[in-house]
Amino acid sequence: MSDYSPGRPSATSLGDYARQSVQPGGWLRKEDLHACVRDPVMDTMNFLNEITVRYPAAISFAPGRPYDGFFDTEQIFTYIRCYLEHLAANGNSAAQIRDAMFQYGPTAGRIRQLIAASLRQDENIDVPPESIVVTVGCQEAMVLALRAIVSGREDVVLVSSPCYVGITGAARLLDIALTAVEEREDGFRCADLEDAVRAELARGRRPRAFYVVPDHSNPSGTTMSLGARHQLLELAGRHHLLLLEDSPYRLVSPGPHLPTLKSLDRQGAVLLLGSFSKTVFPGARVGFAVADQVVADHAGRTGLLADELAKIKSMVTVNTSPLSQAAVAGMLLASGGRIAECNAKTAAYYGNAMRSTINQLDQRFPADRRTALGVRWNEPNGGFFLTVRVPFRADNAALARSAEEFGVIWTPMYYFYPDGGGDYSIRLSISYLTQEDIEEGIARLTRFIEAEVHAAATIQ
Amino acid sequence: MSDYSPGRPSATSLGDYARQSVQPGGWLRKEDLHACVRDPVMDTMNFLNEITVRYPAAISFAPGRPYDGFFDTEQIFTYIRCYLEHLAANGNSAAQIRDAMFQYGPTAGRIRQLIAASLRQDENIDVPPESIVVTVGCQEAMVLALRAIVSGREDVVLVSSPCYVGITGAARLLDIALTAVEEREDGFRCADLEDAVRAELARGRRPRAFYVVPDHSNPSGTTMSLGARHQLLELAGRHHLLLLEDSPYRLVSPGPHLPTLKSLDRQGAVLLLGSFSKTVFPGARVGFAVADQVVADHAGRTGLLADELAKIKSMVTVNTSPLSQAAVAGMLLASGGRIAECNAKTAAYYGNAMRSTINQLDQRFPADRRTALGVRWNEPNGGFFLTVRVPFRADNAALARSAEEFGVIWTPMYYFYPDGGGDYSIRLSISYLTQEDIEEGIARLTRFIEAEVHAAATIQ
Repeated sequence: MSDYSPGRPSATSLGDYARQSVQPGGWLRKEDLHACVRDPVMDTMNFLNEITVRYPAAISFAPGRPYDGFFDTEQIFTYIRCYLEHLAANGNSAAQIRDAMFQYGPTAGRIRQLIAASLRQDENIDVPPESIVVTVGCQEAMVLALRAIVSGREDVVLVSSPCYVGITGAARLLDIALTAVEEREDGFRCADLEDAVRAELARGRRPRAFYVVPDHSNPSGTTMSLGARHQLLELAGRHHLLLLEDSPYRLVSPGPHLPTLKSLDRQGAVLLLGSFSKTVFPGARVGFAVADQVVADHAGRTGLLADELAKIKSMVTVNTSPLSQAAVAGMLLASGGRIAECNAKTAAYYGNAMRSTINQLDQRFPADRRTALGVRWNEPNGGFFLTVRVPFRADNAALARSAEEFGVIWTPMYYFYPDGGGDYSIRLSISYLTQEDIEEGIARLTRFIEAEVHAAATIQ
Repeated sequence: MSDYSPGRPSATSLGDYARQSVQPGGWLRKEDLHACVRDPVMDTMNFLNEITVRYPAAISFAPGRPYDGFFDTEQIFTYIRCYLEHLAANGNSAAQIRDAMFQYGPTAGRIRQLIAASLRQDENIDVPPESIVVTVGCQEAMVLALRAIVSGREDVVLVSSPCYVGITGAARLLDIALTAVEEREDGFRCADLEDAVRAELARGRRPRAFYVVPDHSNPSGTTMSLGARHQLLELAGRHHLLLLEDSPYRLVSPGPHLPTLKSLDRQGAVLLLGSFSKTVFPGARVGFAVADQVVADHAGRTGLLADELAKIKSMVTVNTSPLSQAAVAGMLLASGGRIAECNAKTAAYYGNAMRSTINQLDQRFPADRRTALGVRWNEPNGGFFLTVRVPFRADNAALARSAEEFGVIWTPMYYFYPDGGGDYSIRLSISYLTQEDIEEGIARLTRFIEAEVHAAATIQ
């Protein structure tokens, strides 16, 4: 993309510009900035991006971006027109429609009824539109939820670990303490969470919430059993713990699905963090929070937690772009609110990619070879990610060797452990690769793993 | 807007729903939530909204929303198409264009070059595109700026007071202490800021930044003189204070304009907070930060403050919707980046509204009457707002009487004073009223003011 006009000569180069404005001693010292910009996760993610740029011919199992092959740019216009027609059909004048697109609009969003209706149809979740806040992607929903429920330094939020970097980032931004509850190799155990809650209480802290991706988790790919879901709800009720449920991959995964925590929730324990990034398109940047918990003040006046989230949203982004909301609403209207149905083809695509990846691993590492090498992986039935355990330290140095010498890129799992861990695991993402790439990529990964094992054996 | 399908019966009514999910003792107590949701500004704003809803026939000088009469819904499609054509003309394939609209995109934004070029043309501000971060409205830019520069409890941000509620909200969200530097009746004085900085230093606090709207301020309508601008830059350099310059009304105000602080800045003192809400349309929710300050770490590695803001943005909203960015970019492209020229008609409209309002006040309160009553107002030459001093307490009770008995609504100025003050002033917004409304509205306001003065005299 180039300038449309030469105009005045622009600052020649960034390097020169930077040198010009350096002050004696530097205008700003990095250590004077907020600690969140020094979060090591930022540097590791930058490292991963650099590796990806430096080895463009490598096959990358790193990015968690959705597949866009079924998407057509024209759909954006179709979706927005569909919403405008819906507004007109519902008796809005041209001036009202102009207002709906042009002006700021309500803080909690314009398309809450459509979202509530789709939640009923797709997820058997029955909540009033008033309990929904439309957000700028799920990330903003996380920020609003964490900000609302953490009021002091004694408050702590627990997370299932390894965990999505978005929740870690939101917590760092707000100076909120996170405590990791580590998954076992077969997934989350409720008893581990209860131990962690008790330990926090014993330290004088107040556990406020537990963040979890129950289905096809990012990064590990694990899915929580139905039994664990019921246990978790029971535990949440007992400890007055809010469950922050984030489940972006369900409706783009082959079913059948277990019920969401929110659909099983009878006590207002679950705050659902919603995303349309995988089901509509990420560029819309539309997500939502469902917060139907009742909040009571001193005087006994009650309202919904969603009202409080909307207040906070007015301090973060004022409101979600009506343009983006129109695109999402148009897709919901065009599909009659059945997001799962509308994504059947996409879900099948991801399902095939996941199965192929697992098949290729099975073929490359037959049972005896697997045992001899100490390599194993889980077998998610949906989502974008699986985890491979390897018998060597899967750090940035190993990643650099893998990219340079073997032409294959993956994500070190230790990026996703807030309290450390995951040094011997890698995350493979299957969402953006063709069948050919998967086949060739797993072949390369196999050669890399065998070379690492061989090198370790030689040193010993 | 109604549901597209009856589906399962939805939760009958919000009231019933709320009662169902109330727990013994309440699931969440408001006092356990973060303090920002109890900010009194929230309640006052709600009160203002309620008044507006309760008296729909009243003429309202309250909303600061831009006039949308020159906007056509179809422009959205034209703008987006214009940007897509620009991408194609610059050698992007259909797949690359699809990717640009569909996927997440770069955290710092896709349209930084276009913004940099328009800043050069409209504002004589010459910064590299790398120093720009595209944000979800100016509000997110405020959050990013405050978060970056405040690292500890000893840090403090100063604000010109009365001040925009957006900056107060962003500070409350992040638990950041604000210190108000009160404007004089003729506007901001640099000596007052310096006194405040010295007082903070004496208390052991570290003044990090000063937030100011130099042109046609919201809420007071004052504009900082050229002399004050130079003094402020000099003071900022001396105290290593970052100036957060927010100037959303300049390019929709009749010129000529004084130079922005940023265009006078030779030392990297100014972080510009930009908005397209008034110049393009609020529904796009696109703003930006210009942060070309150099940041140096322990090891002497340097980068731009914009890079740090982008890291923080990844924790707040991940990125700004490419769809919204496309709409703004299309308008920039269509106007050759000359936002001021493109808004000439809008600026004339607001200019006329401001002059009419002042003329009506002049006519209704001739000089002798003005003095006798103790009523006076400022005469901004642009922007959306002016301030009227009244000889009675302009609080919510007065506002309710004004709306109910006289059919005119305004905003109490005390809403905008973080440390108290403004009890005898009201804000009038002229941006959304017709000439007829202004004439009738000022007539009603006059009757209200005279009645209040009379009532006060009767009591005494």
